[in-house]
Amino acid sequence: MTMNLLYAQAGGMTAVINASAAGVLAEARAQGPRIRAVLAARYGILGVLAESLHDCGGIDLDALAATPGGIFGSCRFNMPPEAEQPALYDRLFAVLDAHRIDALLYNGGNGSLEIVAKVSAAARRRGHPLICIGIPKTIDNDIEGCDCCPGYGSAAKYLASSMYEVCRDLASMSSRKGRIFVMETMGRNVGWLAAATALAARETDEAPHMVLVPEMPFDEQAILARAETLLSRLGYCAITVAEGIRRADGSPLMTRSHGDGHIRFGGAGGEIARLLSETFDCHRHCAAPDYLQRSAAHWVSAVDHAQALAVGRAAVRYALEGRDGIVAAIRRLDDEPYRWDISPVEAAAVANLERRLPPSFITADGMQVSEAGRRYLAPLIAGERAVPCSGGLPVHYRGKPPRLERRLPPYTGWAEDIVRTAQRN
Amino acid sequence: MTMNLLYAQAGGMTAVINASAAGVLAEARAQGPRIRAVLAARYGILGVLAESLHDCGGIDLDALAATPGGIFGSCRFNMPPEAEQPALYDRLFAVLDAHRIDALLYNGGNGSLEIVAKVSAAARRRGHPLICIGIPKTIDNDIEGCDCCPGYGSAAKYLASSMYEVCRDLASMSSRKGRIFVMETMGRNVGWLAAATALAARETDEAPHMVLVPEMPFDEQAILARAETLLSRLGYCAITVAEGIRRADGSPLMTRSHGDGHIRFGGAGGEIARLLSETFDCHRHCAAPDYLQRSAAHWVSAVDHAQALAVGRAAVRYALEGRDGIVAAIRRLDDEPYRWDISPVEAAAVANLERRLPPSFITADGMQVSEAGRRYLAPLIAGERAVPCSGGLPVHYRGKPPRLERRLPPYTGWAEDIVRTAQRN
Repeated sequence: MTMNLLYAQAGGMTAVINASAAGVLAEARAQGPRIRAVLAARYGILGVLAESLHDCGGIDLDALAATPGGIFGSCRFNMPPEAEQPALYDRLFAVLDAHRIDALLYNGGNGSLEIVAKVSAAARRRGHPLICIGIPKTIDNDIEGCDCCPGYGSAAKYLASSMYEVCRDLASMSSRKGRIFVMETMGRNVGWLAAATALAARETDEAPHMVLVPEMPFDEQAILARAETLLSRLGYCAITVAEGIRRADGSPLMTRSHGDGHIRFGGAGGEIARLLSETFDCHRHCAAPDYLQRSAAHWVSAVDHAQALAVGRAAVRYALEGRDGIVAAIRRLDDEPYRWDISPVEAAAVANLERRLPPSFITADGMQVSEAGRRYLAPLIAGERAVPCSGGLPVHYRGKPPRLERRLPPYTGWAEDIVRTAQRN
Repeated sequence: MTMNLLYAQAGGMTAVINASAAGVLAEARAQGPRIRAVLAARYGILGVLAESLHDCGGIDLDALAATPGGIFGSCRFNMPPEAEQPALYDRLFAVLDAHRIDALLYNGGNGSLEIVAKVSAAARRRGHPLICIGIPKTIDNDIEGCDCCPGYGSAAKYLASSMYEVCRDLASMSSRKGRIFVMETMGRNVGWLAAATALAARETDEAPHMVLVPEMPFDEQAILARAETLLSRLGYCAITVAEGIRRADGSPLMTRSHGDGHIRFGGAGGEIARLLSETFDCHRHCAAPDYLQRSAAHWVSAVDHAQALAVGRAAVRYALEGRDGIVAAIRRLDDEPYRWDISPVEAAAVANLERRLPPSFITADGMQVSEAGRRYLAPLIAGERAVPCSGGLPVHYRGKPPRLERRLPPYTGWAEDIVRTAQRN
C-alpha cells in the first residue's frame, strides 16, 4: 500500500506547530515508497474546501522546524454537522478524491479535533476509506486526553523566563512608593500558561508572588492583603494574571465582545495593576506579551519542540496503520526523570472539551501553584535549542511551497465567502 | 599610586548593566595592585549617602555579566545643586573619605550623568581629589555624545526579533475581518526603541508596516490610509508604537500623571489598535512587553554586551589616568563592517540632554525608518550569546555581596526619608 497524505494547520499558532509539520514530512520521507506524496492545505480545512493545496516536496525541514507561526496558514473555521450542511462535506470529499488523499492529518486544538471527529464520522457514514488523524497543538494546554500539548511548553518557558528576568529588574529598583508588576498571559478560560510562570519562583520571595487563574475566582481582599505584605517587605510585588480570571460570580473580569459572537479577553492584567497601584499609591507596570508568547521560537523548550516533532511523526505512522479518528497524544510516564511517549486517544472522546487546571495544582489560598503543579510543569520547559541567526535576527523558513493546480471548479454554496479567504496568497 | 573605586548603578535597568559592572571588576582585577579595592553602593547615589556599601571581592564575573537588572540596586534620585543643599554634598564626601574612595564610577543615563557632572564640580570647588566618571547605560539610547548606549542594542534586538517572530504568526492566520497587531515600546520621549523594530522588515510587506515615533507627530488619517491598504492586500497590518507618540500639537497621546510630578507613559499602543480595529471592524491585538524588553538577558545583542563590558573597563582605566568628569562613550568608526571604540566625552556637556532620532532616520511620510536609520541600527543588534540555563530557566548571579560596616553615623537632614530606602536590603 502507498498513501497520499494531506496535512493542515488550524487554530491559534504556536512557536512549534511547524515542528509538527516537519515531523510529518520527515516521517513521510523516512517511510520511503509507503508514502507517495504529502500535500498541505492552505489555511486549514478552508484550504481543503477551496482546493488550495501545496506540494510539500523540497522543504528544508530544519529551517521549517525553527520557524514560528504556521507556514501553510491556519483558520478558526468549524465544520457544521454534516446533517446541517451535507454539501460542504460533499465538497470536502470531492477535493480529497480529486487529489487521491488517503489520510487527512489535522494539526490543531480542541475545535480542530472536533473537525477530525466529524470528518472521520462522515467518511464512515459514506463508506469512504479516508483516515483522519489529529495532531494536537495549543499554547493553552487544554486538550483532554493529552498530558500536555505541543506549543504549551515553549510558551510556558517564555513566560516563566520572562518573569524570572523581570524579577531581577524589580529587585534592583529602590522605591519609597513601592512597585507593582503584573504580567498578563493568554489562555482564555484556563490557567495553564499563567501557572507556568510559578516556575520562576525558585527561592523565597521570588516573583511571581501571586498567580491568578480562571479556575479560582479571584478574591480582591486577599490579593490586596498579600500585596500589602510584599510591598512592605520587598518594596515590590509581581503578579501573573491570566487573561480569563473570573469574579466570584463566575463572570470574567475583562472581556470585549467583537460582534461576531466570540468573546475576546484582554485587559485583566491592567485592571489588577490599576487596583493595586491606586489602593497603595505605588508605581505600576503591566506587561502583556500577547502574540509574543506564542511565537517566541528563539526561546522554545527543547522538550516541547521534540514532542511537537514526535506527534507529527506518529500521525504518519498511525495513518499507515489505518488508525482512523484518533489523536497522537503525549503521555507522561514519569515526572523525574521525565519520560513520555505518544499514545493514541479517540478524537471524538476529547474533541471540544476544555481541560482546566486541576484543583490539586492550585494552593489552598487560590493564589499560587502547588508543589504538585510545579512537579507537573517543571519538565515541560526544560532544555534549549540553538537558534540559527542572521543579522541579529532568527533565521526562519521563508520559502513558498508551490500550489497544486486545481482539478475542480471553485467552491460555491454555503459559507463560500469564508472559503474564498483560503484562496488568498 | 593605588586607588579605591566606588561603583554604582542608577536609573532604569537594562539587560546588560551588570555586564558593565563585570567590566569594572574585571579591569580592576586585571590592573593588579594599582586598584586596591572596588566597592559598590546599594541603590546608586542613595547608597553612597546612606553609606550602604558592598565589598565586590569574590563575585563570579561570568555569572554577573549574564544577569539582568542591577545586582547592586538602582535609584532615580537626582542630587540637587550643591548651592541648594550643601550639607548633602558634605555627607557625600564624608562617606567617600571614610572609605578612602579615590574615584566614583556612576553607571546610568542622562540624569545620572548630571550627577557625575555635579559631583565632579563639587569636588573641584572643594579642592577634593575625587575623580568622577560616567558609565553610560539606557535602553532609550538617548545620551548625547554617545553613538549608542549600552542596554539599547539588547532591547532593540529583543523587540526586533519579537516583531519578526510575530510577523510569521500574523501571516499564518486567515481572517475575513482582518487583523491589527500593535507592539508598544518604551523610550519615553524618543523613538529609538520603536525604530529598531524596523529591522524586522527585511522583505516586502514584512512587519512592522508602520513605526510611529515621538519625533514625528502622528497623522491619524495617514495611518488609517496605510492600514487600509495593508489590510486589503495582506489581511493584516502590524505597527510599532512608541509609548511617547505625540499629536500634531505636541501633546502625548497617552500619559498618566502619578501625583509625583513625573509623567508616566503607557497605553498609546492600545489606543492605536483600538482606533484601527474600530475603524475597519477588524480583530486587534496589542503587545506591551514593558519590563520584558529591558530585562531579556536570554536574548542580548553580543555587540551590546561587549560594549557594556568595554565601557566598564574603560571607566577604570580613565580613573587610573585621573580623567575626571568624563563619560566612557561609544564611538562608531565604521558602519560596515561595524567598528567602534570607547572615547571620553565631558559629562557636563552631555548631561541631562535628550538625544532624539535624527530626522534623516525617519522616512518622509513619518511612518517608517529610513535606509540611513537602518544602516545605523543594524550592527547594534548583531550577535548572540550562549545562555547558561538550569531547569529551563536562565542562570543568574544570585549571590549577595557582603555589606561593609558603617564608619559614620546614619545620615540625617534633607531627604533623609529617601536616603533611608537605600538601607533596605
